[in-house]
Amino acid sequence: MTDPHDPDRRRDLAHVGPVELFTPVPEESCAFFVQQMGLREVFRDNDSVYLHTWDDYQSWTVRLIAREQAGIGRTYLRAAGPQALARKTDELRAAGVAVTSENSVRGLGDVFLFDDPDGHPMGLYWDVERYQADDSDRPALKNQAAAYPGRGANVRRLDHINYLTSDIPRTAGFLTDLLGARCTEQIIKDDGEPQAVWYNLGNKTYDLVYTEDWTGTRCRLHHLAFATDTREEILRAADVFLDAGTHIETGPHKHAIQQTFFLYVYEPGGNRIELCNAGARLILAPDWETISWTLAERAKGQAWGLKTIESFHSHGTPVLESDA
Amino acid sequence: MTDPHDPDRRRDLAHVGPVELFTPVPEESCAFFVQQMGLREVFRDNDSVYLHTWDDYQSWTVRLIAREQAGIGRTYLRAAGPQALARKTDELRAAGVAVTSENSVRGLGDVFLFDDPDGHPMGLYWDVERYQADDSDRPALKNQAAAYPGRGANVRRLDHINYLTSDIPRTAGFLTDLLGARCTEQIIKDDGEPQAVWYNLGNKTYDLVYTEDWTGTRCRLHHLAFATDTREEILRAADVFLDAGTHIETGPHKHAIQQTFFLYVYEPGGNRIELCNAGARLILAPDWETISWTLAERAKGQAWGLKTIESFHSHGTPVLESDA
Amino acid sequence: MTDPHDPDRRRDLAHVGPVELFTPVPEESCAFFVQQMGLREVFRDNDSVYLHTWDDYQSWTVRLIAREQAGIGRTYLRAAGPQALARKTDELRAAGVAVTSENSVRGLGDVFLFDDPDGHPMGLYWDVERYQADDSDRPALKNQAAAYPGRGANVRRLDHINYLTSDIPRTAGFLTDLLGARCTEQIIKDDGEPQAVWYNLGNKTYDLVYTEDWTGTRCRLHHLAFATDTREEILRAADVFLDAGTHIETGPHKHAIQQTFFLYVYEPGGNRIELCNAGARLILAPDWETISWTLAERAKGQAWGLKTIESFHSHGTPVLESDA
Amino acid sequence: MTDPHDPDRRRDLAHVGPVELFTPVPEESCAFFVQQMGLREVFRDNDSVYLHTWDDYQSWTVRLIAREQAGIGRTYLRAAGPQALARKTDELRAAGVAVTSENSVRGLGDVFLFDDPDGHPMGLYWDVERYQADDSDRPALKNQAAAYPGRGANVRRLDHINYLTSDIPRTAGFLTDLLGARCTEQIIKDDGEPQAVWYNLGNKTYDLVYTEDWTGTRCRLHHLAFATDTREEILRAADVFLDAGTHIETGPHKHAIQQTFFLYVYEPGGNRIELCNAGARLILAPDWETISWTLAERAKGQAWGLKTIESFHSHGTPVLESDA
Repeated sequence: MTDPHDPDRRRDLAHVGPVELFTPVPEESCAFFVQQMGLREVFRDNDSVYLHTWDDYQSWTVRLIAREQAGIGRTYLRAAGPQALARKTDELRAAGVAVTSENSVRGLGDVFLFDDPDGHPMGLYWDVERYQADDSDRPALKNQAAAYPGRGANVRRLDHINYLTSDIPRTAGFLTDLLGARCTEQIIKDDGEPQAVWYNLGNKTYDLVYTEDWTGTRCRLHHLAFATDTREEILRAADVFLDAGTHIETGPHKHAIQQTFFLYVYEPGGNRIELCNAGARLILAPDWETISWTLAERAKGQAWGLKTIESFHSHGTPVLESDA
Repeated sequence: MTDPHDPDRRRDLAHVGPVELFTPVPEESCAFFVQQMGLREVFRDNDSVYLHTWDDYQSWTVRLIAREQAGIGRTYLRAAGPQALARKTDELRAAGVAVTSENSVRGLGDVFLFDDPDGHPMGLYWDVERYQADDSDRPALKNQAAAYPGRGANVRRLDHINYLTSDIPRTAGFLTDLLGARCTEQIIKDDGEPQAVWYNLGNKTYDLVYTEDWTGTRCRLHHLAFATDTREEILRAADVFLDAGTHIETGPHKHAIQQTFFLYVYEPGGNRIELCNAGARLILAPDWETISWTLAERAKGQAWGLKTIESFHSHGTPVLESDA
Repeated sequence: MTDPHDPDRRRDLAHVGPVELFTPVPEESCAFFVQQMGLREVFRDNDSVYLHTWDDYQSWTVRLIAREQAGIGRTYLRAAGPQALARKTDELRAAGVAVTSENSVRGLGDVFLFDDPDGHPMGLYWDVERYQADDSDRPALKNQAAAYPGRGANVRRLDHINYLTSDIPRTAGFLTDLLGARCTEQIIKDDGEPQAVWYNLGNKTYDLVYTEDWTGTRCRLHHLAFATDTREEILRAADVFLDAGTHIETGPHKHAIQQTFFLYVYEPGGNRIELCNAGARLILAPDWETISWTLAERAKGQAWGLKTIESFHSHGTPVLESDA
Repeated sequence: MTDPHDPDRRRDLAHVGPVELFTPVPEESCAFFVQQMGLREVFRDNDSVYLHTWDDYQSWTVRLIAREQAGIGRTYLRAAGPQALARKTDELRAAGVAVTSENSVRGLGDVFLFDDPDGHPMGLYWDVERYQADDSDRPALKNQAAAYPGRGANVRRLDHINYLTSDIPRTAGFLTDLLGARCTEQIIKDDGEPQAVWYNLGNKTYDLVYTEDWTGTRCRLHHLAFATDTREEILRAADVFLDAGTHIETGPHKHAIQQTFFLYVYEPGGNRIELCNAGARLILAPDWETISWTLAERAKGQAWGLKTIESFHSHGTPVLESDA
């Protein structure tokens, strides 16, 4: 078991990988991601469309799956290496977590499937197919996965996933002790228990977030976040969303927690999508001490005073099972 | 005759209106303007395509005309009102300028055609058709002509035209004395004669520029410039041009003269196109005194030290005649 | 009397000039404008400090006057020329407006003093002293009044003034018929009467705004606005204000009306100050038709959905008399 | 010995820590870093001034040392943990590198001193003093080391160091095999040997760069780079440098290699300083394959076509010894 406070511990997970999203309106959702967000459709089968962000070195970033309701599917996490993958799956099994192996996920090699304590399905993998640009999106510079789209929000990559959960303490322990994630910031309730926890895997400020579900529901998605290069692109994206009739929930503004510049919209299927930019902020200190915010501090609103709107505490979309 | 130094003189011209551009590769040029610059095709006839920038209140901004070579056609200038139009045409005629009337220009009412002393064809008009957005580009906000495209450079509007000319003093007099334009900045040669002159019609820093043609050729185009809302959009446009294989001539950088942030590219037909942003800089002083730059100052390069590249002094495209 | 709908009418006012502001805490207010806003102190006498924005060609932009309470003093408006000044004062007198002459205003020549119908004191002038940079703020480029400060919000210039008024229809008539301003946008109540009116003098989207005072009070200031070159500078200014403990009222966000990107703070004395950026948006059409917004449209909030906060409808600071 | 191509290798170095810089004009250099770059003076002793960037969690970022000529002193590198520090020093000694211990470096605990193969002095450390803001730079948000300065370029942190070296292959081996750095990009000469190599330690695109010294000199500094949050801040910094008379060598522009947006200036002492921004670009792939550029590719110039200027290949400042 890893001690998350030990700076010498190995960081066995590299990053949040591709993710599955369900939508009752697949064509509208696809058009949203392509036209407004700037992703690119790279593959399509019976019930799903695979989309790619231009800076993702992997072959796809989001798989949109047609289903009767919106929701989140499996989150794939890339291990830091083949030994790291073996170590992590061993540790999960040793801790009594059910882990099954799967080798039919598009673009990934062997994937080890498990659920977090709240039930969100995850998958660890090492082998991965590289993105191959074709004539229509070949970049001029060889250090870039695909050409800059010049379309909509031009999101660069998947940034983080924020899950709603019914039991923060149990998931928090799972994240730090088993997955070896590091808690960079948290909200602590008056009873001393965490209400929301932000974890990173490398130098990013965070990659995975768990937020207490005020509705008491188990296992939902709060939002999926995509990074842009600038805050200006988020401001411009707001104009794109406005003209497209996309529901803007809140923002653009700056979070006090993690200082992320944000904009939240609902994609046509109903899932909440964030556009985020952290500027050049990184967590470089290996012994970064978790920043704790009280509910009173939280009640002050966002960094520049914006009050958090009601739906932000209630709207979520459930976990649904994919066939992967 | 107007005294350009009299702040109380009337400003009878409102702005630089639509403009005609010739290209030997009309489809490629059209794709450049639509995909990379963010304009929209609004009408097409036998030999031309009419394109619109999203903030232009008029029905079209650029008419691309198929021709065996690249070049500039007629520049239309909107008068400040119907009486201003009458005054201006009277003054032109009184000064011996040939003025003919034309009423078949798309989207414009009566147009009074004339040439500047170097031969660049122009047209004055007052009546104009408003841009009508349709379902695919209807803006959410009613104070905007069309939806924000979210495509390529997203240029907002035509900003200015820079003509090459064989006789600066004569054109300069025409601009100030007859057209009533105000010279906001100029380059003065060691012999005291102007080498380049920047004119504005309202509060913009400039709308029309005349540059001495070092090749001695009469009557060419140096470039057509389009304004973006931010410098960041110009930086992003550079990425779009890079990936599209568009020839970037120079920039992004900041001119010392007028302080414009610029990027110059050649559209596929060969005409030089500028993307420009002036920040919030405006000429608000009605008695603004012309800023004069010496050749020595000019030799220092652009604002932040970039040297002016050779092709900037030689490349130009000729005036061609349209059938309008 | 000018017909505001006649595009051929003369525009006899050039821009909103310097303005006076009262504050009960002059040193704190001065520190706010210098350290946080980026203005420069250029002169100080017994009870006032004169401050300059780096792109103002005039010798001062804001005069801060010590007084027991916050408030707005006189707004100076520059005429478009000496004949325009004479014409305008004649028209005001002919309309029965009391106009007195004054020649002791710092940096201005003869000033013609009058009040708008609600009582806001104004002054028309033509002669003006140019800003003279000294060794500590001499700009590298000769087309700039002073060096770029590189301090706080780096505001470029005074942009506009928004007055609260008890009688919109009367002030509206005064602005258009007497001052010759053009109403570019307005909010129209269900009874057909205007609730707020935005006027411009040149190509800017607006220079003077009148908003109905919901508290019924006569003659107050809603806010004074300063322009930045980019929206990014407004985002950064929000960080500066946050760290300085300055009260951020609302924003950064984008107005639906006029599309201005905004941030509202209270300077230490209590006056509301806006930072604004319009991108490259200008009103170039000489026959721009006033855009009218209904209360229902207004109730939708700002461009990207932000609700207008309560204090925005109630907080204002009164007109106080200066000794100028 | 570490295999740099093994994704499972430990990453024992966390980041590039504080650094020493020599200058013959200490007061001018200090004023440059404080007024133009936005650092803060935090301590001063006989011959040196310690400066801090606002997002550095450590007590100082750059130590400016008065000396008869400009140059680079020691670069401190923080280990990823106490065991990592022990492992690294053991490995260095095992490889025959002279390592001495030192415990009098301001703000650092035990430091293990050694030279890279070309002679650039370095120091590894784990224990470090945290930055303590005081009343004049206390940030409003607790997840930030110091208040945002709102001054000059507002650089967030030291980003990377680029050393000139006489023997790239030997230093390259040292970096990857001994320090465990990962080569993310490189320039390869026609003879197959590297001409410049970029290494990262975590997810940043690079932290340490070695460039072949065309003058054949051993052991110099090419430049020290500081990160800003946006490209816009670099554009604004260029204005600040212009007005301050600081020598701008080249930029702002975008490197093809690593895609960094850059601006190079000389601080008054003569050392080359870069301002850089990578957008949201990170190296998340644990098995990132080194991108290699040929000399022919390099000859094309920077990303958007800017030619590399001559002084960029010749100007450098030597290593000097500090007394630490």
